[in-house]
Amino acid sequence: MYPVPPTFNKMDSGASVVDRKGTVMLKFMPSIGPRKYDSERKQLFALSANEVGCLVSLGSDESCEFFHDPSLKSSLEGQVKKTLAITPLTDGSGYMFHLSVMNSQLKTNERVSIPVTKAEFAVIRSAFTFALPHLLGWDRMILPQFEGSSSPA
Amino acid sequence: MYPVPPTFNKMDSGASVVDRKGTVMLKFMPSIGPRKYDSERKQLFALSANEVGCLVSLGSDESCEFFHDPSLKSSLEGQVKKTLAITPLTDGSGYMFHLSVMNSQLKTNERVSIPVTKAEFAVIRSAFTFALPHLLGWDRMILPQFEGSSSPA
Amino acid sequence: MYPVPPTFNKMDSGASVVDRKGTVMLKFMPSIGPRKYDSERKQLFALSANEVGCLVSLGSDESCEFFHDPSLKSSLEGQVKKTLAITPLTDGSGYMFHLSVMNSQLKTNERVSIPVTKAEFAVIRSAFTFALPHLLGWDRMILPQFEGSSSPA
Amino acid sequence: MYPVPPTFNKMDSGASVVDRKGTVMLKFMPSIGPRKYDSERKQLFALSANEVGCLVSLGSDESCEFFHDPSLKSSLEGQVKKTLAITPLTDGSGYMFHLSVMNSQLKTNERVSIPVTKAEFAVIRSAFTFALPHLLGWDRMILPQFEGSSSPA
Repeated sequence: MYPVPPTFNKMDSGASVVDRKGTVMLKFMPSIGPRKYDSERKQLFALSANEVGCLVSLGSDESCEFFHDPSLKSSLEGQVKKTLAITPLTDGSGYMFHLSVMNSQLKTNERVSIPVTKAEFAVIRSAFTFALPHLLGWDRMILPQFEGSSSPA
Repeated sequence: MYPVPPTFNKMDSGASVVDRKGTVMLKFMPSIGPRKYDSERKQLFALSANEVGCLVSLGSDESCEFFHDPSLKSSLEGQVKKTLAITPLTDGSGYMFHLSVMNSQLKTNERVSIPVTKAEFAVIRSAFTFALPHLLGWDRMILPQFEGSSSPA
Repeated sequence: MYPVPPTFNKMDSGASVVDRKGTVMLKFMPSIGPRKYDSERKQLFALSANEVGCLVSLGSDESCEFFHDPSLKSSLEGQVKKTLAITPLTDGSGYMFHLSVMNSQLKTNERVSIPVTKAEFAVIRSAFTFALPHLLGWDRMILPQFEGSSSPA
Repeated sequence: MYPVPPTFNKMDSGASVVDRKGTVMLKFMPSIGPRKYDSERKQLFALSANEVGCLVSLGSDESCEFFHDPSLKSSLEGQVKKTLAITPLTDGSGYMFHLSVMNSQLKTNERVSIPVTKAEFAVIRSAFTFALPHLLGWDRMILPQFEGSSSPA
């Protein structure tokens, strides 16, 4: 009954190679007790810059949904379908994050739902807004002076 | 009658160890005259990232309240109860910050109330929004180039 | 029928010389197939700080329009007229970017129109807001400590 | 008839000494022709952090007014009175900045009025929001790693 709060890791694989943009990695773990989570059943969901932008601009009564295939363009394409849906709570106190991971070969369908309060969403929005220009590599492009400072004689 | 404006210190103990998030420390001092404050009776209140997020997203007619026990999970748990309440001023010109520190052993109850204008709250919101990604350690994670610049050969 | 998403480059020629402000360069390429663009017919449009500010503050039902002459104050003044118009989509799902480049000597008029979703515009707004103080050179002025770090003994 | 656009300089005297906060300096020059300004009659107005916060949070139909005495707490106190008033344009297209500098000894009263478009105000708001945490010195407090990077062995 108690929620699994999302914990955040961030991949920045695109920072120095601009045509591969960075992502924000969301980690979801099922709750197995008060403040205990089942890390073996954790699920990852890598938000793209546009998906981060969607969350950042989400109105208080709006929802959004993202579909990912972790094996896109490989022989396993279509085997796993990840869906992340964010819907507003009916009492206006925040959002519900629904993650669904369907594996058609293993015939499994993991689901995790996490309520996120307005305050938690403000933290997420602030962190995401901070991250966006970095995901695009703009911090590198506009601050060339940092390049110099990293190679003292 | 004149308010004690909050002065800000910041603990950043979580910056390099991500699982201990940073906080924003609020310092409250009772006024003992025009622009003079009683520093011996100062009270501290360490806002967590989520509490900072709550303040940042506070609507102009919304209020919020935080409860802290500085001795949580120690033998002194429950002895001191700190409450910080932020409520909108009725004329819409800002907020009132109410801090209450109850010590059940000393049987004391210190109270400080500080009006904060809309302009001051804009400064607070701007500084808090700036601080949030740093409290989570995202600046470290997304800017690995700084790591390099701090250890020249 | 599929849009040509704008890709972004940034000129920061004004960063160290404050009276020549930076710009944000928009690159438009006609689509010649799914995810293939005609880079030989690409068009550039350099947004000034005020134009970036206009986009950042654009309401969801507002539009704006910019006129550029790349040869301003040269003998070729008036030969090429670039117009960038941003108009809201009627269903409120985002904006349409219309670029028109008229060359009176070659008697050509290239046009590119790109729909930009609300999420994509949030990415643009976030990146532009991040960039604005840097376009003005404020990062240099307010962070003199970086100067020091770039010249270790 | 044409406006004198404000140009911005920034004093950062408070960056390393936190109890003297930084300011944002506004420079006003009367127009003496198209894009020509009378630099000998320029007027400066140093906005405090709270005044910057007031501008940043200014609603589109709100106004604000600041009073400065550059000789406060000196023998010349009261001789010069500077007033900066920002009022919304009636057509909602931006704001008017009115600066008045009264010198009771010289019996002069210089006045400059500058219309600022919504786009220009967005640039100002973005730059001011960027500057605010720096004016308070929070960048120093929350980024101690920069200290280290400035003193390589």
